[in-house]
Amino acid sequence: MDPQDDVVEKIRGEAESIYRRIQRKQKPQMKLPIRALSNVRYRPKAGYFQLRGRNKVRTMSVGTVKTFAQTLKMLAMSKELIRTGRHSTKREAYYQAYNWAEAAFTSQDESDTVMDDVEAMIAVHRERLRFRADEHGGEVAGELIVLDRDRRTRQPIEIDCARFGSGAYSVPTVVEDLQFRTKAKFILAVETKGMFERLVEEDFFDKFHCILISMGGVPSRACRRFIRRLADARKLPVYVFTDGDPYGYLNIYRTLKVGSGNAAHLNEFFCVPKARFLGVTPDDIVEYQLPTHPLKEVDKKRALDAMRNDPFIQHHKPWQQAIERMLDMGVRVEQQALAKHGLEFVANTYLPRKLKQVDAFLP
Amino acid sequence: MDPQDDVVEKIRGEAESIYRRIQRKQKPQMKLPIRALSNVRYRPKAGYFQLRGRNKVRTMSVGTVKTFAQTLKMLAMSKELIRTGRHSTKREAYYQAYNWAEAAFTSQDESDTVMDDVEAMIAVHRERLRFRADEHGGEVAGELIVLDRDRRTRQPIEIDCARFGSGAYSVPTVVEDLQFRTKAKFILAVETKGMFERLVEEDFFDKFHCILISMGGVPSRACRRFIRRLADARKLPVYVFTDGDPYGYLNIYRTLKVGSGNAAHLNEFFCVPKARFLGVTPDDIVEYQLPTHPLKEVDKKRALDAMRNDPFIQHHKPWQQAIERMLDMGVRVEQQALAKHGLEFVANTYLPRKLKQVDAFLP
Repeated sequence: MDPQDDVVEKIRGEAESIYRRIQRKQKPQMKLPIRALSNVRYRPKAGYFQLRGRNKVRTMSVGTVKTFAQTLKMLAMSKELIRTGRHSTKREAYYQAYNWAEAAFTSQDESDTVMDDVEAMIAVHRERLRFRADEHGGEVAGELIVLDRDRRTRQPIEIDCARFGSGAYSVPTVVEDLQFRTKAKFILAVETKGMFERLVEEDFFDKFHCILISMGGVPSRACRRFIRRLADARKLPVYVFTDGDPYGYLNIYRTLKVGSGNAAHLNEFFCVPKARFLGVTPDDIVEYQLPTHPLKEVDKKRALDAMRNDPFIQHHKPWQQAIERMLDMGVRVEQQALAKHGLEFVANTYLPRKLKQVDAFLP
Repeated sequence: MDPQDDVVEKIRGEAESIYRRIQRKQKPQMKLPIRALSNVRYRPKAGYFQLRGRNKVRTMSVGTVKTFAQTLKMLAMSKELIRTGRHSTKREAYYQAYNWAEAAFTSQDESDTVMDDVEAMIAVHRERLRFRADEHGGEVAGELIVLDRDRRTRQPIEIDCARFGSGAYSVPTVVEDLQFRTKAKFILAVETKGMFERLVEEDFFDKFHCILISMGGVPSRACRRFIRRLADARKLPVYVFTDGDPYGYLNIYRTLKVGSGNAAHLNEFFCVPKARFLGVTPDDIVEYQLPTHPLKEVDKKRALDAMRNDPFIQHHKPWQQAIERMLDMGVRVEQQALAKHGLEFVANTYLPRKLKQVDAFLP
């Protein structure tokens, strides 16, 4: 079976139900989940933010006829992309819709919103609808063979991520069809390209049999999906190594692990529930006498917000303690601060020590 | 000869001249070029912004003793990096300097400035001093074999950029030691990852025997240096494909081609004088009836500034005409607007037509 067959089936199903209502002289309808924090809950067992299941029904009327038409045209575009084996960026989709006459969009915002609707309605992520963002997907180096296909010949291609020298494998924006072969023991996802290149330079992935992934800040959807698919397919633990600040803890780690509130209909596919936080923790500052910087007002605000409102933090006592400790100390720490003890310290001392006590990682 | 020997020689030479002055009981001195637009001119023949050659002399005194010490320590750090075969990010350099007692930096800004001084003084770019930034280096797909070395075994590694499937080769931040093998006919540097993936998906590099490079916006130093070294080594033409707006023309293309004003001591290494601008041009908007957006105030300001003050634009009549036309039309155009004519239009029609009239490209 073509891996896209179920998506085509779903598109056809939606179209048929609308068609049937029209035949029965009823007003056409679409049902969409409500995408808002108020319709979200944190499910510790599943490991991610989930929708509470409230839906809105869009019935065709004079006021909704344009959006209605756009949604149907967008579904048709997706079906055509699947048929031709292509993907379209969100921006390309917007420009292709220039030819929709009265149903054309007036801005890309409008087109993006309709795409989000379609994604939520069909209940698959837009990458499977063959829409992609214009974003980086992260970089990979380590004990991993990525299996892709030659675009022309359809022959399998093996990409050996251990053989990039000082470079790396750049993850594409759509990773649905990639397969993996590896004997690695874990995935180490790092915040900065600087730290990624440090670990490559220190032969870290050779010595510790792992796969290094540079997220380049908050991981993009492509990067999160890549980590998720790889971790699931090869049953690998995922350890996360960021700066020790609210941005690293909440924007990067929390987003990677449980997803984000305003995209709750997607977290199922994009979060990495098994991820665990290796460092840098507030405790590390003391233990390794690391240079720090004072917390900025925006840092404090983000941390306090999370303590008050973030269901993930509220569920995990160790995270509350870590964030409280950070606020008490009043400082943040960068992962590259470990260079105070020499460039090789992070690879030869800090990470090996940490990896001996995986159970002590923050959840 | 080790390719780094000349850098070590230069560092040693600086140190010796300071040492000799001390022995002669003279005040130690350093000579640095002045890094400012006022000390820059555009050299059409060389093809980039050059320094006019004015220097400042820094003599050691009570007021400069700390900076003086920092500069010497930074030189020593570079020498040590060369010895151990490592690189250090600018941030890691700052943290390593925590152990310099009274010469420690109070902020990374301070450390970056001293690094810039060292770079200008030794007259090599900091990558050769083994300092790197924490930035992406662009992505590559196409008819190119990159030759790197295995970090552990020092054995050569061949990276075939035609065999990445939907992914790509991620360029490292330091590209000095890479070698290249290719039968490609040209390099096509594109602004967005979205367009890069479009061309990969359309088999463009196969059909047109080229090397595709995604710059991801304004190209980083690593990306510019990669294009420069590759183009020089294999004598390849470089064509640039950006959005049709002042940002694409000036911030991306102009920076890639001739460098930037405030880094004039480096342009020699980082600019790509042979680059030519393929599109999207204001003429294309009319010829292909492309959807546009009104110019924003910031766009207009940037364009007018360039007409008045940019020596590169002032030197090239065709660029003045193009920018005037854009201002007259009052609109900008995105490269993905070509999708109005179908996703494959850019690869099957627009680029092939353009490539038949390379002489018509903007200079």
